[in-house]
Amino acid sequence: MAFFCRPFNIQVMTEKPFRTPLIRQPLLSQWMGGDVYLKCENLQQTHSFKARGAYHAVSLLDKTAKEKGVITHSSGNHGQALAWAAKSHGIEAHIVVPENAPPIKIAAIKQQGGIVHFCASGMDEREVKMREIQNLHGQIFIPPYNHEHIIRGQSTCAKEILEEQPRLNAILAPVGGGGLLSGTAWATKTTNPKIQVLGCEPEAADDAARSFKAKKLIHPGNPDTIADGLRTGLGDLTFNYILNYVDDIYTVDENEIVQAWAFAIHRLKMIMEPSCAVPLAVLKKHRSALKGKSIAIIITGGNVDTQTLPNASKALGFM
Amino acid sequence: MAFFCRPFNIQVMTEKPFRTPLIRQPLLSQWMGGDVYLKCENLQQTHSFKARGAYHAVSLLDKTAKEKGVITHSSGNHGQALAWAAKSHGIEAHIVVPENAPPIKIAAIKQQGGIVHFCASGMDEREVKMREIQNLHGQIFIPPYNHEHIIRGQSTCAKEILEEQPRLNAILAPVGGGGLLSGTAWATKTTNPKIQVLGCEPEAADDAARSFKAKKLIHPGNPDTIADGLRTGLGDLTFNYILNYVDDIYTVDENEIVQAWAFAIHRLKMIMEPSCAVPLAVLKKHRSALKGKSIAIIITGGNVDTQTLPNASKALGFM
Repeated sequence: MAFFCRPFNIQVMTEKPFRTPLIRQPLLSQWMGGDVYLKCENLQQTHSFKARGAYHAVSLLDKTAKEKGVITHSSGNHGQALAWAAKSHGIEAHIVVPENAPPIKIAAIKQQGGIVHFCASGMDEREVKMREIQNLHGQIFIPPYNHEHIIRGQSTCAKEILEEQPRLNAILAPVGGGGLLSGTAWATKTTNPKIQVLGCEPEAADDAARSFKAKKLIHPGNPDTIADGLRTGLGDLTFNYILNYVDDIYTVDENEIVQAWAFAIHRLKMIMEPSCAVPLAVLKKHRSALKGKSIAIIITGGNVDTQTLPNASKALGFM
Repeated sequence: MAFFCRPFNIQVMTEKPFRTPLIRQPLLSQWMGGDVYLKCENLQQTHSFKARGAYHAVSLLDKTAKEKGVITHSSGNHGQALAWAAKSHGIEAHIVVPENAPPIKIAAIKQQGGIVHFCASGMDEREVKMREIQNLHGQIFIPPYNHEHIIRGQSTCAKEILEEQPRLNAILAPVGGGGLLSGTAWATKTTNPKIQVLGCEPEAADDAARSFKAKKLIHPGNPDTIADGLRTGLGDLTFNYILNYVDDIYTVDENEIVQAWAFAIHRLKMIMEPSCAVPLAVLKKHRSALKGKSIAIIITGGNVDTQTLPNASKALGFM
């Protein structure tokens, strides 16, 4: 109730990442015979947790660096988040985007004030284009996950969860590049090592699970999964965090992901990206082990075209 | 954290209405320069607040009445809620449904174990059919809103809000038949009369606003609004509650409702019925008066076909 007596004429401040709601989901809690909390990063600024890392990384730049502006290559949530973070610090963001990126994503970056540069599709082409721009103007590269400041920024999500529910048994987070999982595991284990941190990954893009098991960084190849936010492989930094702080990484197949996603849309009534369904599918798959416990699941983002939402019938059999 | 140490082998009990989450919505709170809380009845049993009233009414029946079962006429949320409430008390529910009702709604009633009886469309036809069945078996009629037990059941929603946020300035709830608004206003004013209770109604179905102003029950005629849950007129009981306990009733037009609905879907990432957009549209329309305050909005239900969700472009200009 801190804002109860706020004056009427208060101005909205420079935007910062939101403290997003942590909700006790009644249906999942009943079904699990315990407490299932959802951390709603789909309600975050730019509708994904990526706003946390991008904001933190930009805020740590010195004055000279800020004057040069920032740059990244991403057609997804990181591009949008960096554009927003730069705008809220009053600096420029240059986002290199493959020319075949969905128009809806390009529009979202521009809406946040990002300066869009197109390149041919392909990872090499993105980097070439980015270097080309950097060579001219010296913008600072803010990578999507493999960066200490990004990881620490993402850790604020788990920090908020633990402030509200310090006695959890486990936190489940999806893993793609590993920025969120690294930050989550670091924040959790340095606060309370008894809380389990479980990574959740599509079977079809299981480089993190295999790397974790082999204790050796394995590259993902070119994975295909509906959980498009999780196709990326780990970086060396995120791999080290995960090796040191994560308890286990569970995988689920594409059918399990679609079923959990449809369930989330039609029964949890939340609009979320398919990547968010991966920890929900893990909850179902490991229900007997997780039953009766107090569990938080990070719902990582909500940037999905509502035209592509799965049909209700796909949810059958989840619960 | 009451369930923290729950044993693993606990069984799910007979189902009751959920304590739904009350979330502080970060985007709306920032925009209003205050605290905007959403009470998520779209996450309620059967995905609407109607489960509260139906459950309460069924629970108060005596043994003889329970043996006869219950009956109502409704193709909407009340039918589904009564079927569920009856099932969770182990009794029969008979639901009279017009033969042109959407198959998705009929399926939802059947899924809750309701026994569906078809009738010709039209209010008179529904009542004739219902009496016909009642004359044979004597089932107890549980009306959708104009009933003391229903109103008191709906009041549990505001009770939960006030337990979590006792120092609110205002509660906004939509008004159709007035069951929810009656219960909300009664629970609020008997707890803390300083909290404003504001009814929110479509201009196109403004019988409650007109009745409130005229202090005389005005019938709605045959209103047409996208907020299909709010087409019903008040009953004598709900009218009296509203006259005694509600501070004001605000109306919004169809464009305002669609804009708020699209905003809710695409920016709040919550799946809700168009009726839920009515208080959101009121929030925008009366923003200058409500700015800086601590406000709770009841999101009444989530039973909407995701195929019919509004396009993102419809949300433009809300914020």
